[in-house]
Amino acid sequence: MKKYALGLDYGTNSCRSLIVDIADGREIASHVFPYPSGDQGIFTDPRDPNAARQDPGDYLAGLASVREAIRIARDTEKDFDPARIVGMGVDTTGSTPMPVDRAGTPLGLLPEFRGRLDAMAWLWKDHTSHAEARQITETARALRPQYLARCGGAYSSEWFWSKLLHCRKAAPDVFKAAYSFVEHCDYMPALLAGDTNPDTLVRSVCAAGHKAMYCEEWGGLPDAEFLGALHPDLAGLRGRLYEKAWPADRLAGRLSGEWAEKLGLTPGIAIATGAFDAHMGAVGAGIKVGTLVKILGTSTCDMMVWPGDRPLADIPGVCGIVSGSILPGFHGIEAGQSAVGDIFLWFVNRLVPGEYGRDRDRKFASLAEAAARLKPGEHGLLALDWNNGNRTILADARLSGLLLGQTLHTRAHEVYRALIEATAFGALTIIRRIEEYGVPVEEIVNCGGLSSRNPLLMQVYADVTGRAMKISRSDQSCALGAAIFGAVAAGRKAGGFAGVTEAQQAVCGVRSEVFKPVPENTAIYAELYELYRRLHDAFGTDGGAAPLGDVMKRLISLRERQRQGGNVNCEP
Amino acid sequence: MKKYALGLDYGTNSCRSLIVDIADGREIASHVFPYPSGDQGIFTDPRDPNAARQDPGDYLAGLASVREAIRIARDTEKDFDPARIVGMGVDTTGSTPMPVDRAGTPLGLLPEFRGRLDAMAWLWKDHTSHAEARQITETARALRPQYLARCGGAYSSEWFWSKLLHCRKAAPDVFKAAYSFVEHCDYMPALLAGDTNPDTLVRSVCAAGHKAMYCEEWGGLPDAEFLGALHPDLAGLRGRLYEKAWPADRLAGRLSGEWAEKLGLTPGIAIATGAFDAHMGAVGAGIKVGTLVKILGTSTCDMMVWPGDRPLADIPGVCGIVSGSILPGFHGIEAGQSAVGDIFLWFVNRLVPGEYGRDRDRKFASLAEAAARLKPGEHGLLALDWNNGNRTILADARLSGLLLGQTLHTRAHEVYRALIEATAFGALTIIRRIEEYGVPVEEIVNCGGLSSRNPLLMQVYADVTGRAMKISRSDQSCALGAAIFGAVAAGRKAGGFAGVTEAQQAVCGVRSEVFKPVPENTAIYAELYELYRRLHDAFGTDGGAAPLGDVMKRLISLRERQRQGGNVNCEP
Repeated sequence: MKKYALGLDYGTNSCRSLIVDIADGREIASHVFPYPSGDQGIFTDPRDPNAARQDPGDYLAGLASVREAIRIARDTEKDFDPARIVGMGVDTTGSTPMPVDRAGTPLGLLPEFRGRLDAMAWLWKDHTSHAEARQITETARALRPQYLARCGGAYSSEWFWSKLLHCRKAAPDVFKAAYSFVEHCDYMPALLAGDTNPDTLVRSVCAAGHKAMYCEEWGGLPDAEFLGALHPDLAGLRGRLYEKAWPADRLAGRLSGEWAEKLGLTPGIAIATGAFDAHMGAVGAGIKVGTLVKILGTSTCDMMVWPGDRPLADIPGVCGIVSGSILPGFHGIEAGQSAVGDIFLWFVNRLVPGEYGRDRDRKFASLAEAAARLKPGEHGLLALDWNNGNRTILADARLSGLLLGQTLHTRAHEVYRALIEATAFGALTIIRRIEEYGVPVEEIVNCGGLSSRNPLLMQVYADVTGRAMKISRSDQSCALGAAIFGAVAAGRKAGGFAGVTEAQQAVCGVRSEVFKPVPENTAIYAELYELYRRLHDAFGTDGGAAPLGDVMKRLISLRERQRQGGNVNCEP
Repeated sequence: MKKYALGLDYGTNSCRSLIVDIADGREIASHVFPYPSGDQGIFTDPRDPNAARQDPGDYLAGLASVREAIRIARDTEKDFDPARIVGMGVDTTGSTPMPVDRAGTPLGLLPEFRGRLDAMAWLWKDHTSHAEARQITETARALRPQYLARCGGAYSSEWFWSKLLHCRKAAPDVFKAAYSFVEHCDYMPALLAGDTNPDTLVRSVCAAGHKAMYCEEWGGLPDAEFLGALHPDLAGLRGRLYEKAWPADRLAGRLSGEWAEKLGLTPGIAIATGAFDAHMGAVGAGIKVGTLVKILGTSTCDMMVWPGDRPLADIPGVCGIVSGSILPGFHGIEAGQSAVGDIFLWFVNRLVPGEYGRDRDRKFASLAEAAARLKPGEHGLLALDWNNGNRTILADARLSGLLLGQTLHTRAHEVYRALIEATAFGALTIIRRIEEYGVPVEEIVNCGGLSSRNPLLMQVYADVTGRAMKISRSDQSCALGAAIFGAVAAGRKAGGFAGVTEAQQAVCGVRSEVFKPVPENTAIYAELYELYRRLHDAFGTDGGAAPLGDVMKRLISLRERQRQGGNVNCEP
């Protein structure tokens, strides 16, 4: 008798439900629900481009996608029965903390705080707390260097404590009204299980370890003395947070009768502990030792695992190394780029003229078509991929974009290709850093919308890195990962799995289409990467800069070489 | 009885005729004739973005504008009589040399060369000969350093000998068919006077001195030994060029009967020796000692004069110092920016989306409106104005554009403002360099289309330089300058003038509207200029680079400061 699992994936602009056959990973039904509020779900502050908040009401509204997925499953799968869904898992963006009251209700849902940006969920890409991130980094450097070593050497403005500290400073009334703060990924399972009590709800080690400096080695969250050095109120908050956090294979609770009825599911099914989208996505893409999973979306996460019993050095500039954050029993290594798809969206929305098409999709299509006809180096451009700061390996939100090499003839599709290449150079920088610290990258599996929708990007990534680019079979790796954890949390007895590896073997796979590097292109990109790396170091580090006086000239020479000669072509 | 003069101004994309009342500078009639061939008069090579050529047939066709101006004058001026036009002058772009045959006919007009890019006029902004420019610079450094000192320390790919040498290498058949090479500004007066014999036609000291290393001090053109070191055929050509070149107040010839009839003018009227548009424009704008005239167009020329009998040091990086090139008896100092209006045109044509307007003019209008609302530094951007290389002070065509500071929120009008600011920083760099070498800038008079059409640009220039920006009363300063020289060449007896100063006093003036610097803005721009200058030196020179790791952070800090505080506004 068929068994299914349900994955709920909360992204940056929408939420997705996926129902999967756990015998073979067949995806029976899925439904995407765009957040109804703000600008594609995001509230911004015209006075501060760093602000990015979400209405927690959108998260509740997003649960409608579960009902829709069930409806679709009934339509498409002959003998589908929602009672055969054995468990469910939830992933979300993060760090996306929400201030909550004593009962665990997000303040953003309460009438007295409606519309207040600071009472909403502080979306992962909110960078308002860059000053606080620097303060935390400096305080940790002085008092607790071990905290920093584990999170790449610098604490980010995207992370938990930076956001809480900024909330305390910028909106003391909100901070005071908050009994506790709960990550979006911890809130959803607790809500579905019918008990959001912040003192008892199960917290994710993925969120805690990667974003809140949680580590069992030093007794969980940062100690009160350290937090007190940041702000006395953070020390006071510590006791209202949590002492222990868990991998996603742990049962967070069982579906409440109320939510079972609302969603059309069976009460009491297993709900896995939450985790972040990228981490569950890595599991859905089949992560194992030696496999780098790249989740390519608005931003990018680069995920690897390493056996928990083998030594692993701290990797400078890598976002974090957390035990159990991806696979139970393995170190989870998370790196990433602060903006990838977001850079392309920005460019096409803001700087691409109408001649490329009437709307965004048509513009993307014609940009890609024209850009694919260019040889590497032919446009003479070089860009840095820092429009939203740099997460890995510089861990610095106060960086910005750079485009160099434009002439009076430069066209939008040339800039588009340069931006794709910039993100590829950023990806290569991460791979090099991880390998330098003893973790070999033997295989790369991509997932996320860009990997399946953008063959030009995949070919450029293959050419720039000199490595084959595989693509996860599932278009919905994050939701698939969440479903895997739902089935594992249910356990074998309830028709699920005994462990994650067993589940991955059943449901994960890659597509037959693999993007292979073209050696001639890889050779050109090696030259360009050297220039990229010099700009990267000059603008991204305090170190003495190497002379840059040859950069523009070398790009011009390369452009001339590529325009005049050869028939190398990088079209996939 | 009223007397008039006629100015003929050959620009990059069109040609203009102006009829002026020489009693008071009143502009009776003018007519613009867009070149009919190529892309707005320019022929490009898809394989080399450096190429820019023009069909000499367009120059002949452009003479139709004289007839049109006369027709308009008859319509608007009650008792107008073309017989009262006492003289005419011609200015053109340059260095724009043409290969010509024994009779002085441009090869591009001959059937056997029709359509051949290399047989056309090599437009000033053609940069195909960058390798030859380097060769000439290196050869001069080794053999004749005095040649380099006078033209700013580096010979440009935009100049005469670079183009001839490239023609010899890239199109030996064209070079071989050429008896001589004639600048566009020398060809037009000779043509109108009915004798284009290259051995005898009057050559302009403006073209010769600024572009062909001509100087009386070393006996005219570069010597045969030096030219032979570049290429034996250049040494051979030397004897078919010229020994002496002249300021524009010298009579080049008298209008031939044939052309008088074609144009509707009186045969025998004076034709002044030709010169470049910027130099005649400076005269039309009222240049005198202490006045910097900025001719703002697709590119920019910055012109000053200095008494011929007072000492003047060589100014490194300034395009050239040539005796008599602007005013007879004065040193002419020419500096400039390789692209100004061209950068804005490129941006609006290539990277501005339809939301700003349906066509180019509407886009420019709404970009300007939105950009004017920004405070300095508020966009967080910084650009280099090198999309077409850098003419002054780096004299390097192999440089390119740079834009830095973009986020995921950056809008097209913010980039537009950053590009305007970049050209203003470039302008300030030139002013500083000229003053460092002992020539004080006491007044700035702007002319050219951008000065009258773009008040935002004028205000930004005032704020960035900290100096008032005046605008020439005439919208057609170049043509007015050409008319002045026509009237001076005619002489007082024929109803013209005895000298240029007398003519300028009669016909030149500035508008009452003056753009004055806003001190708060100037203070912010001083901070930004320091960052611009560091990028300028890092990417534009071979010297050791200063660290750049703080550049993006300082722009972000400035952006935050300007967004959050104050009410400084830079709207004119």
